[in-house]
Amino acid sequence: MNTHIAPVPLPKSHRLINHGPSVLVSARHGGVDNVMAAAWACALDYVPPKLTVVLDKAAKTRELVEQSGLFVIQVPTVSQLELTSAVGTHSLATDPNKLANCGVQLFGIDGFDLPFVAGCSAWLACRVIPEQHNQQTYDLFIGEIVGAWSDTRVFRDGHWHFERADPAWRSLHYIAGGHFYATGEALPVQEGAP
Amino acid sequence: MNTHIAPVPLPKSHRLINHGPSVLVSARHGGVDNVMAAAWACALDYVPPKLTVVLDKAAKTRELVEQSGLFVIQVPTVSQLELTSAVGTHSLATDPNKLANCGVQLFGIDGFDLPFVAGCSAWLACRVIPEQHNQQTYDLFIGEIVGAWSDTRVFRDGHWHFERADPAWRSLHYIAGGHFYATGEALPVQEGAP
Repeated sequence: MNTHIAPVPLPKSHRLINHGPSVLVSARHGGVDNVMAAAWACALDYVPPKLTVVLDKAAKTRELVEQSGLFVIQVPTVSQLELTSAVGTHSLATDPNKLANCGVQLFGIDGFDLPFVAGCSAWLACRVIPEQHNQQTYDLFIGEIVGAWSDTRVFRDGHWHFERADPAWRSLHYIAGGHFYATGEALPVQEGAP
Repeated sequence: MNTHIAPVPLPKSHRLINHGPSVLVSARHGGVDNVMAAAWACALDYVPPKLTVVLDKAAKTRELVEQSGLFVIQVPTVSQLELTSAVGTHSLATDPNKLANCGVQLFGIDGFDLPFVAGCSAWLACRVIPEQHNQQTYDLFIGEIVGAWSDTRVFRDGHWHFERADPAWRSLHYIAGGHFYATGEALPVQEGAP
């Protein structure tokens, strides 16, 4: 684990995805690791912190999540644009070397038997709150956030610092058909307005 | 309705919120209209198109959604930063003139008995898919998108055109404590990479 990574207090962990970035979902079961891209992940609650993520039934990563009851939501950066696109289009079902072919490097965090993707700006370790009706009807999974970390070069002291960090640290916001936007300029609201 | 507003085909309607913007939620019941801000809204499915939104039990707008079974998710712009912050902090419960005091102007769309907020970039009319367990346990509402429109000055032909429009049209991405980011630069993925 690189020395820039530090824990984020759980009551502030929703801030890591509050700006609506596309994310990488990773999971591990039975000696298999996988990583997929997801645009449909969203904070759900503050205390205990929870989030939602939509995992299609065709996704191999979903199987690992269902089997282990655990997953990681991580926030990829502009530097990882090609990696994010690649893990969103390759499948472990047809490419057994998907992770290597997509340029994914994994690392571990003590106390969590989960694969974390290196180079991201933030990581949220989640435990599935089983809701079979949501999972089967809507492909909708609810996770309780049980661990949170950030790369302190872009998120520290409870805040994103995109405006002071290298632009390569900005998050990705996927639309469709290979088109992404980066997170843009900071917009502080003026006191007392309107 | 201003002449720049045009319908968006429902199979492409998820693109209006796919980049994870903060949104305005509006609803109408019994002669009462209200508007709130929400950072926790997310696409859920393509066909029929659906989305999720988290509505706190303290929100007056939630009552109107529960009573009418209908709501609008709309995408505010950088021009509406102060309005968005204001409707997120004022409550109709304590300020009967909330909408006027927040600078909100409403308009109608034929065939939909719903209040649409003027000046936004996109609008999604939604019908609640009743899921009492989600609503009561998680404050999580699922809506089917039954109508979609955009302001063609920034979204047309199925695509956002932030990079060619005035920067005041960009979407807002809320973090916490009055801090927002704007949507940033376009990042097309290169063919065949990696």
